[in-house]
Amino acid sequence: MNKMNKINIGPSFPLYPMPVTLVGAIVEGRPNFLTVAWISRVNLDPPLLAVALNKLRYTTRGVQEHRTFSVNIPGVDLVAETDYCGLVSGKEVDKSGLFQVFYGELKTAPLIRECPLNLECRVVEMVTLPTHLLFIGEVVGAYTEERFLSDGKPDMQRMKPFVFLRPEGTYWKLGEKIGEAYRIGKEVPGRR
Amino acid sequence: MNKMNKINIGPSFPLYPMPVTLVGAIVEGRPNFLTVAWISRVNLDPPLLAVALNKLRYTTRGVQEHRTFSVNIPGVDLVAETDYCGLVSGKEVDKSGLFQVFYGELKTAPLIRECPLNLECRVVEMVTLPTHLLFIGEVVGAYTEERFLSDGKPDMQRMKPFVFLRPEGTYWKLGEKIGEAYRIGKEVPGRR
Repeated sequence: MNKMNKINIGPSFPLYPMPVTLVGAIVEGRPNFLTVAWISRVNLDPPLLAVALNKLRYTTRGVQEHRTFSVNIPGVDLVAETDYCGLVSGKEVDKSGLFQVFYGELKTAPLIRECPLNLECRVVEMVTLPTHLLFIGEVVGAYTEERFLSDGKPDMQRMKPFVFLRPEGTYWKLGEKIGEAYRIGKEVPGRR
Repeated sequence: MNKMNKINIGPSFPLYPMPVTLVGAIVEGRPNFLTVAWISRVNLDPPLLAVALNKLRYTTRGVQEHRTFSVNIPGVDLVAETDYCGLVSGKEVDKSGLFQVFYGELKTAPLIRECPLNLECRVVEMVTLPTHLLFIGEVVGAYTEERFLSDGKPDMQRMKPFVFLRPEGTYWKLGEKIGEAYRIGKEVPGRR
């Protein structure tokens, strides 16, 4: 089969949509936060996630030094503060007062009170790539609040996460639910 | 500062929202596709991405053997087929006829015609984790169609991607745009 109407748009085209997170670390004694979309879960048990941080970023120093970091998921009400953390570097601006900070088990993984979900991670492996360091972290604690639960379970519609689209560079709310996983696919064999 | 109203919900709580992709490989001579949400860009230049595949998955065999894979981003019209690819294993069902397949530069990275974005990747590094293998791949080609472009640029609103939420296990459309990156954050210093 040929390529039909497909056109090559070059290898640098980004993946999308991406989750939006604030990664926290202690740098030079103070909490610092960086906007990060290059993040994913990578292992089931133990729960591991991987986060790619540019080698030049201020936050990266703190993760290397303490081998701990936090991942905070902001709700839509924090879109401006989230963008701000990617616009200004901790090298120039002290971002430690931007949010209320708390700690879980790890004393060098600053967690953001205003975010509906907080994960604290211990680095278990680091992969050096040309422009980025890929930190693989074990999640040792996850925090939320009662108001984000429904029937005792975390409820994404209350947490109101948002996503980041490249190449436009825009943030988007979630819209309509279009299906249940492990269920909607069952109708496929019949309709083929 | 104490934890205020925060409650510990345990380390296994997932990241969200996650992108939804179909990862393709050649396994036992045939194209096979697996639904994958554990994926992220990890390096700027060269363009590298990381994908975590369960060691037990059929697709994983093909990526290990040929050291190539594809990443295909489905639009909302493919939600059922996408879910199906995660429900049934290539060990039991031949998924090679589910989509129209084409190839770019790599002859062992099957690309899906029906998906608005296709990336073909060559594995440059593999990290062995307890339950998953983390493949770091260099993107060597990206494909779309003219109908998904606006002013010559890929237009996400035409591509209509969707996201996956855990722990509910649900697929969601994108909703309203809530801000421009590198812009909306500029208002923060003034309002603090």
